[in-house]
Amino acid sequence: MNASTPSRRSGGRAARVAARSAPLTEETRAVRPGMTGGQLKPLTEADVLRIHRAALKALEEIGISEAPPSGIKILTDAGAILGDDGRIRFPPALVEDMLAKANRSVTLCGREARHDLDLSGQRVHYGTAGAAVHLVDVQGDEYRECTLQDLHDAARITDTLDNIHFLQRPMVARDITDNREMDLNTIYACSAGTTKHIGTSFTEPAFVADALEMLYMIAGGEDAFRARPFMSNSNCFVVPPMKFATESCEVMEACIRGGMPVLLLSAGQAGATAPAALAGAIVQAVAECLAGLVYVNAIAPGHPAIFGTWPFVSDLRTGAMSGGSGEQALLTAGCAQMHAFYGLPGGAAAGIADSKRPDMQAGWEQMCSNVMGGLSGLNMVYEAAGMHASLLGFCHESLILGDDLVGQALRCVRGIEVTDETLSFDVMAQTCVGGPGHYLGSDQTLSRMQSDYIYPTLADRSSPKEWAENDKPDLIKAATARKEEILAKRSAARFDPALDAALRERFNIHLPQ
Amino acid sequence: MNASTPSRRSGGRAARVAARSAPLTEETRAVRPGMTGGQLKPLTEADVLRIHRAALKALEEIGISEAPPSGIKILTDAGAILGDDGRIRFPPALVEDMLAKANRSVTLCGREARHDLDLSGQRVHYGTAGAAVHLVDVQGDEYRECTLQDLHDAARITDTLDNIHFLQRPMVARDITDNREMDLNTIYACSAGTTKHIGTSFTEPAFVADALEMLYMIAGGEDAFRARPFMSNSNCFVVPPMKFATESCEVMEACIRGGMPVLLLSAGQAGATAPAALAGAIVQAVAECLAGLVYVNAIAPGHPAIFGTWPFVSDLRTGAMSGGSGEQALLTAGCAQMHAFYGLPGGAAAGIADSKRPDMQAGWEQMCSNVMGGLSGLNMVYEAAGMHASLLGFCHESLILGDDLVGQALRCVRGIEVTDETLSFDVMAQTCVGGPGHYLGSDQTLSRMQSDYIYPTLADRSSPKEWAENDKPDLIKAATARKEEILAKRSAARFDPALDAALRERFNIHLPQ
Repeated sequence: MNASTPSRRSGGRAARVAARSAPLTEETRAVRPGMTGGQLKPLTEADVLRIHRAALKALEEIGISEAPPSGIKILTDAGAILGDDGRIRFPPALVEDMLAKANRSVTLCGREARHDLDLSGQRVHYGTAGAAVHLVDVQGDEYRECTLQDLHDAARITDTLDNIHFLQRPMVARDITDNREMDLNTIYACSAGTTKHIGTSFTEPAFVADALEMLYMIAGGEDAFRARPFMSNSNCFVVPPMKFATESCEVMEACIRGGMPVLLLSAGQAGATAPAALAGAIVQAVAECLAGLVYVNAIAPGHPAIFGTWPFVSDLRTGAMSGGSGEQALLTAGCAQMHAFYGLPGGAAAGIADSKRPDMQAGWEQMCSNVMGGLSGLNMVYEAAGMHASLLGFCHESLILGDDLVGQALRCVRGIEVTDETLSFDVMAQTCVGGPGHYLGSDQTLSRMQSDYIYPTLADRSSPKEWAENDKPDLIKAATARKEEILAKRSAARFDPALDAALRERFNIHLPQ
Repeated sequence: MNASTPSRRSGGRAARVAARSAPLTEETRAVRPGMTGGQLKPLTEADVLRIHRAALKALEEIGISEAPPSGIKILTDAGAILGDDGRIRFPPALVEDMLAKANRSVTLCGREARHDLDLSGQRVHYGTAGAAVHLVDVQGDEYRECTLQDLHDAARITDTLDNIHFLQRPMVARDITDNREMDLNTIYACSAGTTKHIGTSFTEPAFVADALEMLYMIAGGEDAFRARPFMSNSNCFVVPPMKFATESCEVMEACIRGGMPVLLLSAGQAGATAPAALAGAIVQAVAECLAGLVYVNAIAPGHPAIFGTWPFVSDLRTGAMSGGSGEQALLTAGCAQMHAFYGLPGGAAAGIADSKRPDMQAGWEQMCSNVMGGLSGLNMVYEAAGMHASLLGFCHESLILGDDLVGQALRCVRGIEVTDETLSFDVMAQTCVGGPGHYLGSDQTLSRMQSDYIYPTLADRSSPKEWAENDKPDLIKAATARKEEILAKRSAARFDPALDAALRERFNIHLPQ
């Protein structure tokens, strides 16, 4: 406070509005990608250790079946034991050795470096994921088969949203029947829509070579891609319980050799393909991912891999999935603690709605697991936005609203800073003893209104009176309007014309130019 | 597993349906009132200590103004110091002495003992609260003034909801213009609607005698009420920052003498009536509640009181309240840690939506603070359901949906049990090695489907196909139908006719018989 800034002290609405209109630098925004979580610990330290030991025991005694011949060689060469029953068992010492070799400082690159994701520590990032087969059409209130264009639009929307940090392919292009063309067009549609990091899957090992060729072209050469791989392979290398997914393992081997980071994705479903007891579901996921970790590091020590324990929840009345449940939020948060225990970059699923629409149920379901995933320090919160009907439907409007939702979750992850300044003794004394008796115009309030508070884009905070005067704005209509605005603009991630022509020359690209 | 239970091993859907249809005892439900939280700690231990010390310093050096004459005597007799500036300052030793005398094992009684709330430790309970002036009419999509009947209906609905554990008066009866009659009719409307614990406020100290008379009549005499006070006084004893609310303090004194537990409610608003820095808002709320704690225990050592640090959040762009923000969830969770630090029964606000409707925004806003409040071990999560427009509107449909929402939050509070059995090694081994390769029919799945999983009442988990076949059920319409079903039945909490006649003889009861 000094004589040159009287207008700031005079405070009030005009000063706040002026302060707010000043542009924000990336550093002064209240939330950013990679804020550090870990304040939530559903498991005690003893629980974590017991889960670790149970996972080691499961790997040693139960083992994992159905490895491909290449995998059997890789794993037994490393010290795993192939049993007469075809199951590969992992001595605890082998697992511990490979844990020591694993990469703990993975950065997932964007095509633009400003979108790089540092997965060290308990830094939290939110993004899409999944393999929805429907687009949720909110205007028509119906589920329809999703298309390559829908996927490209999701990528373009994601590119514009501050709090959606990466795009893992959230839906499959149902309008492309040839799997090879689908996989290649998925890469194209995602990459042409966003320069954020992308994750995708490949249907068959034989498609990986073409995919790598496309990725190397986009990156400007193989070396450029290997230096900054902007795409990772989301790989369901196991079919729980405790079975390798033979073909996916072969895909994984090819991706590793091609320089792609791998998401080791174990997607059991508690009560169906994983134990119904939550602790057991975590044990199995950890065991499976540890097997994957051995596999990866036996091929290429230190290859970037994400520990993808994604246990899901069954509604045990029907056996159907329930991604929106409290049990799901607990599984995800518990897994994040296991990642932190190993010091490995990890990811799990959160933000899934069971609701078919972006309604109140969807809101509470998506927030519950998203905020708990973030608070537990999950590096990669997959499925964080747009996902409905327990992964069967993806919704563009919901993705856009998810930016607001995840923004609030990120604010919670950021936590409460306690410093001499934030403890606020001085401002309290100045305000209460002979001061104005309120904090509206104080320097602290002005300086913290941008740095400490996040403001929603579409969520409505008006009073009932203002709301009525504004014709009672509808959240979903506002999201649709925002979607149309985004998609009406030229994509900032679009390839330059020469590259685009080359890609279209080499591959059968289904998206119109 | 033995020969006498082959049908359970044969598993599958029929067995699950049969198991589900068996009635659940209170003990076997997946969630209950009073589950223990505390897994979320947004503040470090050092942070907690710094906040405590800053609060002591604020009480010692800034003090609190505007105590009523009776309060000045009570506090200065206890050792507080009245300054020339009219502020009462509290030596740290006085605060520490009163902390030692404070009641740490408060039970808030229901009119039926099965609804008693044990506030020891970090046991979590969810309920309504507030002073909304509007009812949110979802059919008409409008806000209208709320009435005594609306309040009574809220009580009746609350009485039927498993996960709404108490009824603090959520709205004011705008149709009663005389404040004394409003206060008395509020007691009647709430008590005649639910046998769960009730909280309410009184407009003037002069009304407390009549209120106590009514409460004693309902309880069956003064001794009966004092033995099991089913109503507590929600008391805004301070007008932040650091000012006593003179009349409310006099109300509090009368309530304490009449045998009512007191909620010491400090409702500052960060950036307006509390520091904008979150830590500072907590410091101020803690300081104010510590002053209240001294006040209560100076009158009646060990009188049941709830440490009601309720710092709210301003949207600093406008100064308006934002109860649905991430900052709010953090403030509430941080306060819960302070309550745990003192070992005192505590409460704070969560579950508030800024949204005007029970839409997706409302869902994410209500879940964010509700789940974080519970995970932080807040004894009393006030405002947990039904509250919209940053406390200005209450919605019966939203209250009903809140039962589902809070149920999921409670499931998260319950956490992940880690035992030899839940670690599930045996069931994994049996399933994977020569077993069925899935867990659908396992004994563990059957036994845990009710004890470990909570199923929503109205939230929809159907597949898109089932959803379309069911004519795409609308969440809000389902809630309205449930509301009408509840209100069509006779209230289980209704007074017996003789008591009702006596109450109507003595007081001007506005609710029809």
